[in-house]
Amino acid sequence: MKVGFIGLGAMGAAMASNLVKAGHTVTVWNRSEAATAPLVSLGAKAAATADRAAQGEVLHSMLANDKAVREVILDSGLLDGMDPGTVHVNHATISVELARVLVEEHAKRNLGYVSAPVFGRPDVAAAGKLNILAAGKVSAVQKVQPLLEAMGAKIWPLGEEPERANIVKIAGNFMLVTAVESMAEASALTRAHGVSAGDFLEIMTSTLFASPVYQGYGKSIVEQRFKPAGFALPLASKDIGLALEAGTSRHVPLPFASLLRDSLLEALAQGDEDLDLASLSLVAARRANLGD
Amino acid sequence: MKVGFIGLGAMGAAMASNLVKAGHTVTVWNRSEAATAPLVSLGAKAAATADRAAQGEVLHSMLANDKAVREVILDSGLLDGMDPGTVHVNHATISVELARVLVEEHAKRNLGYVSAPVFGRPDVAAAGKLNILAAGKVSAVQKVQPLLEAMGAKIWPLGEEPERANIVKIAGNFMLVTAVESMAEASALTRAHGVSAGDFLEIMTSTLFASPVYQGYGKSIVEQRFKPAGFALPLASKDIGLALEAGTSRHVPLPFASLLRDSLLEALAQGDEDLDLASLSLVAARRANLGD
Amino acid sequence: MKVGFIGLGAMGAAMASNLVKAGHTVTVWNRSEAATAPLVSLGAKAAATADRAAQGEVLHSMLANDKAVREVILDSGLLDGMDPGTVHVNHATISVELARVLVEEHAKRNLGYVSAPVFGRPDVAAAGKLNILAAGKVSAVQKVQPLLEAMGAKIWPLGEEPERANIVKIAGNFMLVTAVESMAEASALTRAHGVSAGDFLEIMTSTLFASPVYQGYGKSIVEQRFKPAGFALPLASKDIGLALEAGTSRHVPLPFASLLRDSLLEALAQGDEDLDLASLSLVAARRANLGD
Amino acid sequence: MKVGFIGLGAMGAAMASNLVKAGHTVTVWNRSEAATAPLVSLGAKAAATADRAAQGEVLHSMLANDKAVREVILDSGLLDGMDPGTVHVNHATISVELARVLVEEHAKRNLGYVSAPVFGRPDVAAAGKLNILAAGKVSAVQKVQPLLEAMGAKIWPLGEEPERANIVKIAGNFMLVTAVESMAEASALTRAHGVSAGDFLEIMTSTLFASPVYQGYGKSIVEQRFKPAGFALPLASKDIGLALEAGTSRHVPLPFASLLRDSLLEALAQGDEDLDLASLSLVAARRANLGD
Repeated sequence: MKVGFIGLGAMGAAMASNLVKAGHTVTVWNRSEAATAPLVSLGAKAAATADRAAQGEVLHSMLANDKAVREVILDSGLLDGMDPGTVHVNHATISVELARVLVEEHAKRNLGYVSAPVFGRPDVAAAGKLNILAAGKVSAVQKVQPLLEAMGAKIWPLGEEPERANIVKIAGNFMLVTAVESMAEASALTRAHGVSAGDFLEIMTSTLFASPVYQGYGKSIVEQRFKPAGFALPLASKDIGLALEAGTSRHVPLPFASLLRDSLLEALAQGDEDLDLASLSLVAARRANLGD
Repeated sequence: MKVGFIGLGAMGAAMASNLVKAGHTVTVWNRSEAATAPLVSLGAKAAATADRAAQGEVLHSMLANDKAVREVILDSGLLDGMDPGTVHVNHATISVELARVLVEEHAKRNLGYVSAPVFGRPDVAAAGKLNILAAGKVSAVQKVQPLLEAMGAKIWPLGEEPERANIVKIAGNFMLVTAVESMAEASALTRAHGVSAGDFLEIMTSTLFASPVYQGYGKSIVEQRFKPAGFALPLASKDIGLALEAGTSRHVPLPFASLLRDSLLEALAQGDEDLDLASLSLVAARRANLGD
Repeated sequence: MKVGFIGLGAMGAAMASNLVKAGHTVTVWNRSEAATAPLVSLGAKAAATADRAAQGEVLHSMLANDKAVREVILDSGLLDGMDPGTVHVNHATISVELARVLVEEHAKRNLGYVSAPVFGRPDVAAAGKLNILAAGKVSAVQKVQPLLEAMGAKIWPLGEEPERANIVKIAGNFMLVTAVESMAEASALTRAHGVSAGDFLEIMTSTLFASPVYQGYGKSIVEQRFKPAGFALPLASKDIGLALEAGTSRHVPLPFASLLRDSLLEALAQGDEDLDLASLSLVAARRANLGD
Repeated sequence: MKVGFIGLGAMGAAMASNLVKAGHTVTVWNRSEAATAPLVSLGAKAAATADRAAQGEVLHSMLANDKAVREVILDSGLLDGMDPGTVHVNHATISVELARVLVEEHAKRNLGYVSAPVFGRPDVAAAGKLNILAAGKVSAVQKVQPLLEAMGAKIWPLGEEPERANIVKIAGNFMLVTAVESMAEASALTRAHGVSAGDFLEIMTSTLFASPVYQGYGKSIVEQRFKPAGFALPLASKDIGLALEAGTSRHVPLPFASLLRDSLLEALAQGDEDLDLASLSLVAARRANLGD
């Protein structure tokens, strides 16, 4: 298929490369042009403007946050230049509110819109093993199904309303951050009683919590390896903000999310902007004055 | 080996039965005598008093909480009647403080003491597949190793100081309760936005959180099946209390545990004493006025 | 002086009436016109449009929130029609971020800008006894000083940067909501132990907490009188949101504010949108299942 | 009247001195004897043992916590040596649970028991201006009324069940600690936006919060004067513990108290055991990395 791909950060680049490898004709665009080179060497075409990347049958975008999506997709006039019938697959983790705006703006122009946020770090994306949430009109989802399959190990259908995929992604990331804080606090407690984080977390992540999230972040906590960040603190902070915002709009108290908000701000206040989420363990240790 | 077993609740009975099946000579005792019958039918002997059950080479005990351990083991004079060299294996989830008292009281009388709390519900115990934490003097742990192996899939050695096993158990249960609250809040959020707990949790427990704790409690939340309680609210409340107490004694703030304390009290205030921990989902839903 | 006044809710109407009574020539405007009648009967003129109300030497505005200020002041083009040198006195409780935008937009047009949020309920405003925070360029503040004095018992100068008054107002309201939650929780505790909220709060508000906030809200809690709302739950929820937003932008964790956010959402989830902030006592009581 | 007074810390000494000044015959005792000298110089007699101090018509005690009360009053056998009809007035801030035990132990021996915890710092006690809560049998309270009046500006009757006075004292101290944390967080917020704690708190404690607690602690926060401690962090931590314990026993969630528990532990973890409660401002500032 002839597709465009906008947003070539670590995740987007890995995802786009799998579309190329699957034999699709992929036109890529990124705000800072340098990111296009590796894709071009794989066989993609680089577009000079985002508009040009949007001329295929399907447009994928993987942008950082609400602000980037608003600028690149909405405020730019990009949608106005797309052919009716084109389907836009938005992989970004954005607010439910913005998702609703996007649904409307695409509908006005007879454009298809599929919300398809993903679970998985860049290495998982590179391996084509993402878990991809997908919500949108049946016809639109069916059309892009082969593209999603080129990027993911499993596609999770979530019905016709695109924002359903967004709330699942937001709630899932909330659970993920919770899991990390849980290890941070619990291992501060064992450390204060003489049991190292390593001894403690090895047991937990081999038994009750033998799952990818706990094992991955548990390892980072034990090894105090917080760079390079797979999931940087500012992004986690943004995602907890999305959960709180989604809670506010429907009057859902989220005490854990509120608390995570404050722990993440405390981490950021120390200037740790480039550290991984796993560094929440430093916050818990500092509060108890445990040293590193 | 000739062993005694005190405390035949759902967990203790299952554990003792595996000792019998492994060919050991097991004398059992329980506060309410009725619980001994099934064990006797498997080949165990019922002791008329706890003291009699403590006449073997090894005494296991699996009691409910600090209070029960104090009454049955300490205040009763039981230890005074035990032969020097006997090893007491305490499987209960008790406070670090009481663990330290027990170490001292056993040492005074030349009794061995092994702290061996377990992870696993009654069905896991029945299958002999528990994860067993074990801490105590090397000689004592070695002596009881075959007994632990008859009850567990894996024995996790935690060094010579018995209370090390207790803090790991306490911190582990804290993580477990955190995981349940995390699902409770996150699924309240998705429900408020139109995605059922079932749709949401199926995805999460098949992907990032494909681990026993999430799958088991996730299922209970989705099916709203809170009885019979595998881990009843009052026990969870007690265990979070142990974590907070262990935090207080070493000045370790535990914001998540504090919050869980309040959520569990809120559940108990509704009169839900016999419900499973998974019913934290009802608290989260009630706060958001979502209905059941 | 010839002044305009935009925004005639309970607070704005009371404030404007004091300007009239002090002998100023006051032109008023309100989105729903009915609110102008009482002012006109006192001697004010009603303007047909907001622009007309902005033709005096000074323009006061007392609007509900960021959204209303953006619509009425910024998006409407109102500022473009004002004479250079006119001073706009903004009494609304708005975000620090919007305050900064307003500073800039006024400066561009050579308009004076004074941030002057107030402490006090409508009855205090009617009595001309408000505490008024005031920040802005010295010349602008001096010009409006007699107007502020007509409405307030005391004017608190906060320097030249208008947003300084806003952060003080936001932090102050945060303290106020905290005080109410504090009474709500503490009296739930005494009630559960057999001491009525009335007995308890009478003592506290006569001794350690003999101040207006505690006495006023304490009385509402004891009498369970939550309507009409002096400070309605949605407004309190908005104000705590402003505090959290101001905390986020500078990385200031605010655990109490986070918790208040959730308590207020819980109140709103019960459909109590028209109840006073004092009804946080209902939330605390419901959590403990105390009945009303 | 012939009275005894046990426990001559800063509070107890000040209170006992007012009994002496009021013309009562006062026999004092303290664990470390040195504290008796100033009282003796005022005209009190020093007893060699606590038992001797308990030989008057009324025995006052002002001990530090549950542990001290248990040791000095219960475990020592003191009550056994007291004449039936003697009234014991217990001024300590103790748990509701211990209060109930004391009621029973006094009743068994036909001793009167009045729970009379106080609000006020040592300087207030010295001035005889305490607020004194009083609960106990009518006859007992009437008998000691003149003694209480010698020490307090106002006596607040709380009925016949002594523990009612204790829960009011516990809930009141919880409100007090809440007020301090509120100022700590709110002034961290204004500081991060360029408004000093001094500028902010002067306004708040002159207006909405013009009450003794806010003014006293607010001054300490602004002047960063945390020694000598009027209310030391470990005592505040103990008192929040009493509130949480009282909440647990009746299933009353207390989110603010939970949070205060963690903030106080964080302060104590920094080694600040001899600082005043006002130093919670340091915790809030450190979290936001604001410097001192």
